[in-house]
Amino acid sequence: MHYTKKDIDNLDRVTRIKIINSVTGIKPANLIGSMSNEGQTNLAVFSSIVHLGSKPALLGFILRPTGEVPRHTYSNILENGFYTINHIHPEFIEKAHYTSAKFHQEISEFGACGLTEEFIEGFKAPFVKESQFKIGMRYKQSMDIPLNGTILVIGEIEQLILPKESVVDDDVDLERSKSVGISGLNSYYSLSKLDRYPYARVKEVPDF
Amino acid sequence: MHYTKKDIDNLDRVTRIKIINSVTGIKPANLIGSMSNEGQTNLAVFSSIVHLGSKPALLGFILRPTGEVPRHTYSNILENGFYTINHIHPEFIEKAHYTSAKFHQEISEFGACGLTEEFIEGFKAPFVKESQFKIGMRYKQSMDIPLNGTILVIGEIEQLILPKESVVDDDVDLERSKSVGISGLNSYYSLSKLDRYPYARVKEVPDF
Repeated sequence: MHYTKKDIDNLDRVTRIKIINSVTGIKPANLIGSMSNEGQTNLAVFSSIVHLGSKPALLGFILRPTGEVPRHTYSNILENGFYTINHIHPEFIEKAHYTSAKFHQEISEFGACGLTEEFIEGFKAPFVKESQFKIGMRYKQSMDIPLNGTILVIGEIEQLILPKESVVDDDVDLERSKSVGISGLNSYYSLSKLDRYPYARVKEVPDF
Repeated sequence: MHYTKKDIDNLDRVTRIKIINSVTGIKPANLIGSMSNEGQTNLAVFSSIVHLGSKPALLGFILRPTGEVPRHTYSNILENGFYTINHIHPEFIEKAHYTSAKFHQEISEFGACGLTEEFIEGFKAPFVKESQFKIGMRYKQSMDIPLNGTILVIGEIEQLILPKESVVDDDVDLERSKSVGISGLNSYYSLSKLDRYPYARVKEVPDF
């Protein structure tokens, strides 16, 4: 199938959203946990978390335009300064998926979706207890993307908790950590490790 | 395992890069094709491509600091204005991986890594013939990320080619398109579709 820009512009809204959300390929499936200064917690599934750098250890995520609907995750992050990123595992994909429903601000998705808040001494945002791979983030900066009103939200890793059995030969194995991926808006995938290649040096490139 | 910010700061450089590049979870495995105005082609593996919006259909990717080593992909994109994004499939993961070696500018990774340039009428950047899922992009804008010198490069989709058999029930199935994922810098994963859930509405949330 071949779509030109004109074909894409002419797709109905729902089809366009489904297709264009899928074209980058597999996306990481994470839950972002946050909390207002009054202690109201929030949990939301995000598939746009991206590695920005290792020193300092920075991660970003893309937030849809804040004008459309209230963005509780973002207002909590701006207020509190901390948030968490939690890998989704196969056992709780359905619960994680339903955090994307538009609950009122006073409803915590933790309770509504059957997931458990977990607090770590000295860190003031809620982790997901059911997740074995989780990250405590300190908010650093937001960058507006004027082309479409989205925002790149950037934070630094302050806490990193991962299952010991997922670290194999000095590498993180996402099959062993049972991390999952998302395609589009609502399809979930498991991962099977195929292969690992060495750091690529020109002198060591095979004769293809 | 639990790392604090201090533990992360104290990791040796290679271990830190490997771990922090893995923590977001699975990343999409794509090849970016580009070409200078003199016709010199370039191909490079990227795992940071992210969906920014569907109308207009915008995708971004993160470019490491341009000061470190020459960034042929980026100079070509700025010069030519067009580039391609091509999904990696299991049959050519090794070839795709070796495009990350630091070849001299006058060497095309297409030839050096055994992949085939493909041009589409009216589009002046090279696609990867071996890829069944590929996107022609028009460069729109770059945003510097001052926190670490990386750049978010944004483009709009002009051409979209995907295998017909990957579109099932109005959804793109990345297992059927044989798209693969990357963890860290050099581990590759295949995808198995687990489940698909409906658009989440508050009234339809199951009783968890």
